[in-house]
Amino acid sequence: MRRSTAFTDIDFDRKGRQVGFFHIPQSPDDDAWGTVRIPLAVIANGTGPTVILEGGNHGDEYEGPITLGEIIRDLDPGTIQGRLILIPAINLPAVVAGKRTSPVDGLNFNRTFPGDPAGTITRQISAYVQDVLLPRGDAFLDLHSGGSSLDILPSAIVEPAPDPAHQRRNINAVLAFGAPITVVVDNLGEPRTATAAAVAAGLTVVGTEMAGAGTVSLDALDICRRGVRSVLAHLGVLDPSFAALRRPDPKVYEVAGASSYVLAGDDGVFEPYHRNGAEVRAGQPAGRIHFLHDPGRAPAELRYGADGIVYARRQPGRVRPGNCCLVVASPYRGSLG
Amino acid sequence: MRRSTAFTDIDFDRKGRQVGFFHIPQSPDDDAWGTVRIPLAVIANGTGPTVILEGGNHGDEYEGPITLGEIIRDLDPGTIQGRLILIPAINLPAVVAGKRTSPVDGLNFNRTFPGDPAGTITRQISAYVQDVLLPRGDAFLDLHSGGSSLDILPSAIVEPAPDPAHQRRNINAVLAFGAPITVVVDNLGEPRTATAAAVAAGLTVVGTEMAGAGTVSLDALDICRRGVRSVLAHLGVLDPSFAALRRPDPKVYEVAGASSYVLAGDDGVFEPYHRNGAEVRAGQPAGRIHFLHDPGRAPAELRYGADGIVYARRQPGRVRPGNCCLVVASPYRGSLG
Amino acid sequence: MRRSTAFTDIDFDRKGRQVGFFHIPQSPDDDAWGTVRIPLAVIANGTGPTVILEGGNHGDEYEGPITLGEIIRDLDPGTIQGRLILIPAINLPAVVAGKRTSPVDGLNFNRTFPGDPAGTITRQISAYVQDVLLPRGDAFLDLHSGGSSLDILPSAIVEPAPDPAHQRRNINAVLAFGAPITVVVDNLGEPRTATAAAVAAGLTVVGTEMAGAGTVSLDALDICRRGVRSVLAHLGVLDPSFAALRRPDPKVYEVAGASSYVLAGDDGVFEPYHRNGAEVRAGQPAGRIHFLHDPGRAPAELRYGADGIVYARRQPGRVRPGNCCLVVASPYRGSLG
Amino acid sequence: MRRSTAFTDIDFDRKGRQVGFFHIPQSPDDDAWGTVRIPLAVIANGTGPTVILEGGNHGDEYEGPITLGEIIRDLDPGTIQGRLILIPAINLPAVVAGKRTSPVDGLNFNRTFPGDPAGTITRQISAYVQDVLLPRGDAFLDLHSGGSSLDILPSAIVEPAPDPAHQRRNINAVLAFGAPITVVVDNLGEPRTATAAAVAAGLTVVGTEMAGAGTVSLDALDICRRGVRSVLAHLGVLDPSFAALRRPDPKVYEVAGASSYVLAGDDGVFEPYHRNGAEVRAGQPAGRIHFLHDPGRAPAELRYGADGIVYARRQPGRVRPGNCCLVVASPYRGSLG
Amino acid sequence: MRRSTAFTDIDFDRKGRQVGFFHIPQSPDDDAWGTVRIPLAVIANGTGPTVILEGGNHGDEYEGPITLGEIIRDLDPGTIQGRLILIPAINLPAVVAGKRTSPVDGLNFNRTFPGDPAGTITRQISAYVQDVLLPRGDAFLDLHSGGSSLDILPSAIVEPAPDPAHQRRNINAVLAFGAPITVVVDNLGEPRTATAAAVAAGLTVVGTEMAGAGTVSLDALDICRRGVRSVLAHLGVLDPSFAALRRPDPKVYEVAGASSYVLAGDDGVFEPYHRNGAEVRAGQPAGRIHFLHDPGRAPAELRYGADGIVYARRQPGRVRPGNCCLVVASPYRGSLG
Amino acid sequence: MRRSTAFTDIDFDRKGRQVGFFHIPQSPDDDAWGTVRIPLAVIANGTGPTVILEGGNHGDEYEGPITLGEIIRDLDPGTIQGRLILIPAINLPAVVAGKRTSPVDGLNFNRTFPGDPAGTITRQISAYVQDVLLPRGDAFLDLHSGGSSLDILPSAIVEPAPDPAHQRRNINAVLAFGAPITVVVDNLGEPRTATAAAVAAGLTVVGTEMAGAGTVSLDALDICRRGVRSVLAHLGVLDPSFAALRRPDPKVYEVAGASSYVLAGDDGVFEPYHRNGAEVRAGQPAGRIHFLHDPGRAPAELRYGADGIVYARRQPGRVRPGNCCLVVASPYRGSLG
Repeated sequence: MRRSTAFTDIDFDRKGRQVGFFHIPQSPDDDAWGTVRIPLAVIANGTGPTVILEGGNHGDEYEGPITLGEIIRDLDPGTIQGRLILIPAINLPAVVAGKRTSPVDGLNFNRTFPGDPAGTITRQISAYVQDVLLPRGDAFLDLHSGGSSLDILPSAIVEPAPDPAHQRRNINAVLAFGAPITVVVDNLGEPRTATAAAVAAGLTVVGTEMAGAGTVSLDALDICRRGVRSVLAHLGVLDPSFAALRRPDPKVYEVAGASSYVLAGDDGVFEPYHRNGAEVRAGQPAGRIHFLHDPGRAPAELRYGADGIVYARRQPGRVRPGNCCLVVASPYRGSLG
Repeated sequence: MRRSTAFTDIDFDRKGRQVGFFHIPQSPDDDAWGTVRIPLAVIANGTGPTVILEGGNHGDEYEGPITLGEIIRDLDPGTIQGRLILIPAINLPAVVAGKRTSPVDGLNFNRTFPGDPAGTITRQISAYVQDVLLPRGDAFLDLHSGGSSLDILPSAIVEPAPDPAHQRRNINAVLAFGAPITVVVDNLGEPRTATAAAVAAGLTVVGTEMAGAGTVSLDALDICRRGVRSVLAHLGVLDPSFAALRRPDPKVYEVAGASSYVLAGDDGVFEPYHRNGAEVRAGQPAGRIHFLHDPGRAPAELRYGADGIVYARRQPGRVRPGNCCLVVASPYRGSLG
Repeated sequence: MRRSTAFTDIDFDRKGRQVGFFHIPQSPDDDAWGTVRIPLAVIANGTGPTVILEGGNHGDEYEGPITLGEIIRDLDPGTIQGRLILIPAINLPAVVAGKRTSPVDGLNFNRTFPGDPAGTITRQISAYVQDVLLPRGDAFLDLHSGGSSLDILPSAIVEPAPDPAHQRRNINAVLAFGAPITVVVDNLGEPRTATAAAVAAGLTVVGTEMAGAGTVSLDALDICRRGVRSVLAHLGVLDPSFAALRRPDPKVYEVAGASSYVLAGDDGVFEPYHRNGAEVRAGQPAGRIHFLHDPGRAPAELRYGADGIVYARRQPGRVRPGNCCLVVASPYRGSLG
Repeated sequence: MRRSTAFTDIDFDRKGRQVGFFHIPQSPDDDAWGTVRIPLAVIANGTGPTVILEGGNHGDEYEGPITLGEIIRDLDPGTIQGRLILIPAINLPAVVAGKRTSPVDGLNFNRTFPGDPAGTITRQISAYVQDVLLPRGDAFLDLHSGGSSLDILPSAIVEPAPDPAHQRRNINAVLAFGAPITVVVDNLGEPRTATAAAVAAGLTVVGTEMAGAGTVSLDALDICRRGVRSVLAHLGVLDPSFAALRRPDPKVYEVAGASSYVLAGDDGVFEPYHRNGAEVRAGQPAGRIHFLHDPGRAPAELRYGADGIVYARRQPGRVRPGNCCLVVASPYRGSLG
Repeated sequence: MRRSTAFTDIDFDRKGRQVGFFHIPQSPDDDAWGTVRIPLAVIANGTGPTVILEGGNHGDEYEGPITLGEIIRDLDPGTIQGRLILIPAINLPAVVAGKRTSPVDGLNFNRTFPGDPAGTITRQISAYVQDVLLPRGDAFLDLHSGGSSLDILPSAIVEPAPDPAHQRRNINAVLAFGAPITVVVDNLGEPRTATAAAVAAGLTVVGTEMAGAGTVSLDALDICRRGVRSVLAHLGVLDPSFAALRRPDPKVYEVAGASSYVLAGDDGVFEPYHRNGAEVRAGQPAGRIHFLHDPGRAPAELRYGADGIVYARRQPGRVRPGNCCLVVASPYRGSLG
Repeated sequence: MRRSTAFTDIDFDRKGRQVGFFHIPQSPDDDAWGTVRIPLAVIANGTGPTVILEGGNHGDEYEGPITLGEIIRDLDPGTIQGRLILIPAINLPAVVAGKRTSPVDGLNFNRTFPGDPAGTITRQISAYVQDVLLPRGDAFLDLHSGGSSLDILPSAIVEPAPDPAHQRRNINAVLAFGAPITVVVDNLGEPRTATAAAVAAGLTVVGTEMAGAGTVSLDALDICRRGVRSVLAHLGVLDPSFAALRRPDPKVYEVAGASSYVLAGDDGVFEPYHRNGAEVRAGQPAGRIHFLHDPGRAPAELRYGADGIVYARRQPGRVRPGNCCLVVASPYRGSLG
């Protein structure tokens, strides 16, 4: 393990419920010998797998952290078999700011794996996950929502695994979530995410995208609460009665590459033509960008680049070139079993 | 009229369509002799009233500006009787930033009336509306949405007028909008808004709140497009065929005072218990604030202070003390005629 | 009274203890319909004068607010005669930031009287004090410390009153505080402070400067706790037993004009030659400014401009031209009776 | 005179050379009892008029301040008749920042007259000029250059006076400067400038524009050094031998209104077609705006709106809508005598 | 090749003209799934070398990007032999900001080679150039101007190559540019620039410095337009008739080390004594720094450290210690053939 | 040695006094070809060890830099045997800002060793120390104070060395400083500090903590002046008469691990219960956090985690979770000889 100055008041090997913190020492202008203090809880009982449950990977995604806080406060340790390691606000500075990225170093935690214990704070946090937590885990749940910039269909996410057996294990766990739809998302092959790191470390991995738009969605919160318990039941930590009714004919999609994203080509305000969930085809008009500062100029139209359903849309009306306006999820072409 | 250095390329007295700008000279670090250039269009024909249509009062509210841009580009001048003065992006620096307030001086345009031609830029813009535009108008439409921080039930808004006849005139015009609900909003008596200034200047005034959440709502955009045309028909500018079906039994509410607002008392993440439109009563639990950075601490519950429907909710989950979490609209106790 | 949208949940005329807030509605980018929520408490019983106790005039001065918080939570209403109106964090945004000035509008609250209910937030707060609170008060205590930039000898402060009887009343109340020294400070005639406004409104006024340096001083906190109670006993609100032993031969000084201030003339790091309390004479070397970035250059020496004691010194070593490095308090030349 | 806390170590009535400062007390986060310290020098001898020489109205215009610094250090008081009041860095915070506007309050000093001694710092400085300095002066020289955003033909400037005799007096003094060209600039009637305030106070007023582009121009510095001395000779303060050869047939222009300014209509990079001094006509292509981020889009062309010479051009290539790209000076249509 | 998530819509192997973009996915607060979209064009025909033409290495240098935009829009593919890969705004975020460095991560693109596909955005862009573009190129033109902080004699630049044959190849190509002067610049041995990376990759490399001062120079633009075509003719891509008249006795200089730079030692405003192009000697006074905030203090003089011509000067008058005020180019002591 | 573009005007091998700079070339927006210029002085004579004396590791710690500046200006080279390399403002940008960390790249210099000559400026500075200075040194003094956020008992610091003989050498040199107390501080094992790098390079290492609170302490300055000379005498560079009276029974403590730090768990204002130097025990109440914005809420108490003396306290009253409020130094359990 790489040398680190991080420390914690949690004993990972003790039974029962512990609610505490791990600390990343930092030395900024206003606190020479202080720390970034990150919530960490462990609930353990009997025998069973260790499941790491992460929220707050991005600081403006709330359904996961709320769900994990409820488990931390309310779950009776005696009702489980195994160990839960809960980090509901892993990028704490971002969570406190209510921002996707950390105000400390400007980094997106989900682009920092495997981290660096001698790097800036966000990299030290991901190094802690990489070096201290992942080696203790059998499974990893990373609970995302769309965040301030995206409104996404509530869904459970499969992080692709190169090994087919691992991929099946992931898909099975994800389907246990019971989300309205399941989506395979590879982020264009991005290797620096938490779920990619967990897959690389061999864990069973489940992701989510719970609505978003920077708010707390009542519907998505309900899906998340039941889905997390259902996955824990699937993994054998909770009683099988917590398993949601596994959908008999699950809808599985994939975000299949660059053509899935409708990107802005102009600076203006985006008006979409369809709602999330609508079926669309490549080449079809998707929306248009208005030039409010110059109303005599005709809006510029955008088109879809793939067939499928509208899976996500940009929340802020204001767009600049390169902004992601819409995302299409296409029917999954891989195998489910 | 107060002395001003503003100028325009628009001739307010010419017939037909003119699309141009008015300019507020400014002299910041990077542009010693330049201007803030604000879109201004006039469409005039025949005889009839002058209607001022304003969008972009706040820079992150989009349905109104999009609707006005469409009118500017597409309305055939020959089809109207009277004059439209269109200012679809009145607080231009805020519109360009996609923010509620102006990045130039930090001001909320809607708290600057009657403005000051020797003040900062936002005050100069409101002075222009006050001194140059309002004296030319018979009616004033100020097209708001909820903006980035609020998600509001799409509605048409009555700005109260002290004179009962003026109040009736306003209510009649607002009901012509045909919105799902109509709400009397006095902003706790705030006199510095554009609509308050327009009422004080004697104009017939119509306001809107079109969803919000910082995005473009397909539903609200549709309501706005039809509502604006319907009001113009009511005022005699457009053919009566443009009038939306006036709802036979309109739902009219009011935001009746400080008790209508559910304000945060803690620093955390707000989870509401009800959707917009739900019926609620004073004293009933309204939601709770989670302490994600300290998950062992129990959430703090908030309660409603008035009977009515949930009219608006805060969009960002992140709240701080004083933030408006929810707004209750109560049945209107005034007279409709 | 000037028109305002502020509101409160406190009933100024009720007996007993009330702990609540007053609200200044605001409408920034992230909270369209929210408020600045400022703590306000009233403790009332029997008959007697109304005393307004203010802390948090500057947001980085702590002994006063801590003392007022203790009174709010712990004082038994049955033990007083009269009414206390407590505003321990009056410039709330500055207090939350831990800064002298407000992050909302950049203003120093103590340069904004008489305020403006149509102005920026800080001006609205001072308008509330001016219009709602001062008219209800007989006496006004404004509890300052030195703040982040100054370390000041703990002292009670006399705000000069033009009327000699009013001046004697102020001096008597200030001497009742029992501070180690008493200082008459006129801030070069500044009329925009809270204490100047209270004097102008006819109230008996007591000020303090409790150490400073941006920290909580144990000594100064002890002086403040006892001094406030002693003044309340002097005013007849608390039992006379709370009166501190009035010093038989009080030390009274004045900061008598521009020559009392030793101002930096260079950009560097200031090394003082004497401690607070040292006796010094006009013309004597006071300290020197080092040029750390250019160590070959000889430091520049500063001199005192008045005879007296070193009353205050700059806390941050880093200085720029115009910064106040030292303040001399000279023996008071006015009458004490 | 309005009440103020400003003070100075200069005795305006003493003969000889005094180099000191006036102070505007301020109380920001990092300096509770300090000042803004602004250079002020007086050189007086014998009998003669009082001339106020101002530099640093904008903090990124250097030829005037350098010239005034040389006079302050080098001029032998025995060689003059009258009094010079020199303020070479009047908006000191802007000068220290090297910016047009003040970093303290964001204000352009030249839009703040008549100032306010209870306002923000820049307004307090202009109030000092208005209340303390202008009443002592017979003539006022305000030495500008183009600043960071403009490159201007070196020229002497006439601030229009409504009284014809006053206007002749101004023109005569300006022609004495001996600049390559003389331009009447009314800033679209702007009344808040220093020169407008000085005209309103009855002083003889001379302005300059000395190149600019944020740099020190060797040519413009030479023109400025000789021009200032020549004006002082014209006013009788310096020996007539310092008068520059008054040009026998002076070139006099005016910036005559909004059509003189070529304003950007797009967001991009501006390429001008002509150099400063070129003769141009209304309607002629003036330059074009390139869209570097979208090189497939054709540039947008701009045209002149008046006949005359290219008097100024924007220095930064990067432009946004409303930015002033070019200024045309037209032959002066008024009378020179 | 290092793993990357970048993608493009350009087919590098297709003939004819393609104008598109390459995308660097990014995930900031306001755009979770968007990209930085960077213009990329390919013009290919027949057989011949591949030439990479880069502009916008720094975002405030315009002659190169304008020239490349004209080629992208106007060059007839049928007139060339070979392939042009054009990246006119390579550091797109800096170009949009009009700044030398990227607002995204604060980095100077020209200090980031060889880049890192897992690094911040600017490092990902340089990794794309390093991994995707340079391997496809035979020659590399990097078109700089002086930028906002420097005004430089228009010149063509030789990046030194350790291999003498490579060095000769570079010099020959640079002399083909036909610039008024040619300068060998090694940036004190800096290996992280685009041209150093291209030399290390074996390409023939040509650099430029086209005036600067943050503006578009008509003269320099003319030199750049003709020079680029002339180099393309030299490389065999364009018809030889496009070759500028190669200067028979080219003036070749070098910036030979630390003594070539005249660096500020004080905080003030710099007045140079000579124009660009003037001949100067080591030890000769070069200019002086004025202390405008303290006009009684004598200016500080600076001296040249090398013999040669004044090659560049600082544009902003405001200087701080370490700022480069002037650069001397000395006659080149190396071999030209 | 790693490749670097840094340069200096100092000849490390020359005898006598040299006062100059070393330069790190940088290329930011406002200075394309300039440098960060860092003071460097060498005083050499006769034979003896080379001692590196560093100040300004953090830019808001002043006693060390003032002491080194005095040595640079005043020490007679003829009185020493050996060589002093003095870097009194090593993190120059932080020193100029008066901040702990560098405004250039946001880094704490003392977390950047061994640095990187291709990294950001702070990393380039530490690379210069690592590659150019440390190899020339026999001993290294790093003179810290508490800085703006901490008030620390004036003390000399031992950086632990893994080799016992090296550790004894360090302790002996530190005890020669003659500070009131001596403390072994390992910063939780942090390897990226200057002293850790110097120990790793084999030098004898002495650290200090001289009060702090962002100011210049008269007492600490006196301790520092005498202590530095005393260490130089101990090392044989100065005459033994400069050695302070070595305390016969030195008080030696250690900061022994995470339990030594009392960290804030809430957002509020911290009131300590004891002064620095007080004896305390683990479990004892240490202070409490007040909620000034919500005065009805009871303060939260903190407790010590170790036995010992209060060694340091937070200076700013305002605290947030994770901030270091107090530090306990426990009696040193290691060997002193």
